[in-house]
Amino acid sequence: MPPGALGRLESLALRLAGIRQTLTPRTDRKRILTFAADHGIAAAGVSAFPQEVTAQMVANFAAGGAAINVLCRDGGIEHLVFDVGVAASLDCAGVVSAPVRRGTRNFLKEPAMTAEECEKAWRVGSGAADTAREDGVDLLGIGEMGIGNSTSAAALLCAILDLPAEVVVGRGTGVDNAGLGRKVATVKEALRIHRETCGDRARDWLAAVGGYEIAAMAGAIERAVAVGIPLVVDGFIATASATVVMADNPLAREGLFFSHCSAEGGHGRVLQELEVEPILDLDLRLGEGTGAALAMPIVSGSAALLREMATFRSAGVAEKGE
Amino acid sequence: MPPGALGRLESLALRLAGIRQTLTPRTDRKRILTFAADHGIAAAGVSAFPQEVTAQMVANFAAGGAAINVLCRDGGIEHLVFDVGVAASLDCAGVVSAPVRRGTRNFLKEPAMTAEECEKAWRVGSGAADTAREDGVDLLGIGEMGIGNSTSAAALLCAILDLPAEVVVGRGTGVDNAGLGRKVATVKEALRIHRETCGDRARDWLAAVGGYEIAAMAGAIERAVAVGIPLVVDGFIATASATVVMADNPLAREGLFFSHCSAEGGHGRVLQELEVEPILDLDLRLGEGTGAALAMPIVSGSAALLREMATFRSAGVAEKGE
Repeated sequence: MPPGALGRLESLALRLAGIRQTLTPRTDRKRILTFAADHGIAAAGVSAFPQEVTAQMVANFAAGGAAINVLCRDGGIEHLVFDVGVAASLDCAGVVSAPVRRGTRNFLKEPAMTAEECEKAWRVGSGAADTAREDGVDLLGIGEMGIGNSTSAAALLCAILDLPAEVVVGRGTGVDNAGLGRKVATVKEALRIHRETCGDRARDWLAAVGGYEIAAMAGAIERAVAVGIPLVVDGFIATASATVVMADNPLAREGLFFSHCSAEGGHGRVLQELEVEPILDLDLRLGEGTGAALAMPIVSGSAALLREMATFRSAGVAEKGE
Repeated sequence: MPPGALGRLESLALRLAGIRQTLTPRTDRKRILTFAADHGIAAAGVSAFPQEVTAQMVANFAAGGAAINVLCRDGGIEHLVFDVGVAASLDCAGVVSAPVRRGTRNFLKEPAMTAEECEKAWRVGSGAADTAREDGVDLLGIGEMGIGNSTSAAALLCAILDLPAEVVVGRGTGVDNAGLGRKVATVKEALRIHRETCGDRARDWLAAVGGYEIAAMAGAIERAVAVGIPLVVDGFIATASATVVMADNPLAREGLFFSHCSAEGGHGRVLQELEVEPILDLDLRLGEGTGAALAMPIVSGSAALLREMATFRSAGVAEKGE
């Protein structure tokens, strides 16, 4: 093969080989985990949608009607949904029920969660990664649903990466200018309130301004990296989870595939700070794991090329000459 | 769904709906056509590889060992290979044999092909698009193989889009600086030689400096657009074919999906001139249809979303409020 002709697919394939410790990495069994939870910060008027939408979307996931369901069906990807803290009593067949609490607290008034609650949510995610390993999943993806969580993720990213709120905060599912102003002010105030107690400890910030689904995704990421399952990170919110993990273990980057650069706020800038290159750039800002689902065929294709492609020599093709 | 949350997938899906004249476009049956031919201009020392590589790669396609074979298998895509003018006697099962001539002429000395030869190659492509329609193909892709064809494509693009050779010419499969200089000089000289006879007629330029595979791809593109089969264009060389078609029918753009921005020369600039936005940007420069294969799942996903996604109302999700 002409050197470099496969461009970024080569580095994707080589990283897969490193994670799986084989030159023939398989990607047959793909699975996406969608974690859902509610946020006390929604009371601050930071979302264009009311809080009950979280529970309604979980019901929609269970019914198979959401974007992530459609993309998983189209891409041959298994899909699991976790309630890790939705502010409603859910009784949906097909949803893994593991609520830590019915929504976090309003982090303008107190920490969003206790350290114990944060740990509990984290373990839901790490347990899901363990299950994926037991099930022989070759490629794992994560995504989320939670009204208010783009504000929570922005606060977390600003705190850990030391970026200004104006750079990171975006419109989420579509707040107007006034709403955007409220989000920026909320993040600034949250950083001020919690700085003294959290310092530069990413896990403390996660508990102070994060969410149960953000903690669960972080747990899944940490565990997937530890046990060697390649993991595809969804968009802005999922990147916040990855940032928490990478703050304590920068090498985790090697086990992760950042699926896309979201249209949300400063996602592009955040990815730059993390020194990672997203696979896709399609102006998505839907979450749920949709970016991960769309990037999986590219990761899968790169693995297939590494496994199955004939070299020039084995195919009897003449070498490059001058 | 929050407005715009699906980003560029929305415009992909809406264009598919327009092409297929249905709000439930299917993409079940996907097919990629790889056209192969040789180029007299290879004698000018414009390629890093010897001409016999074209025939060897066609044999590799037939044996299933090339990148395009691997990606088509991984993506559930049918793959057909056409010999439209390889400079060797090929006897490969599984290759559609339709050679116009054993390679084009050296366009520094005379036109690469006669108008009749160009038309013959074009019809191989349009016939393949007709067959795809008869077979019920939902999504068609095109790609190519031909040592020397990045020089041919660059000349064609410079002529039709009136761009300088220095902007468009690239390293192909990897020429060194001296080779790059020869390619630029070759393109400039070709433009000078053929300008008087070709004027601003794209089809005349195609015959003068193009290739049989480039003409065949143009035929497939024109016919696919005419009969309403959505077509995914591969990289730099395939874009030259699309440019020929769009020169005579700018509306053809609506029927085409440009799969990726190649690392080859001025492909990004060319796509800008054509006012099209590529789906992927992965630094590929392999051709064969590999970019088309990698972009097909994204196009397919956008169609699935349009077909199958519940609206907020049908899923019982609360509307946006203030």
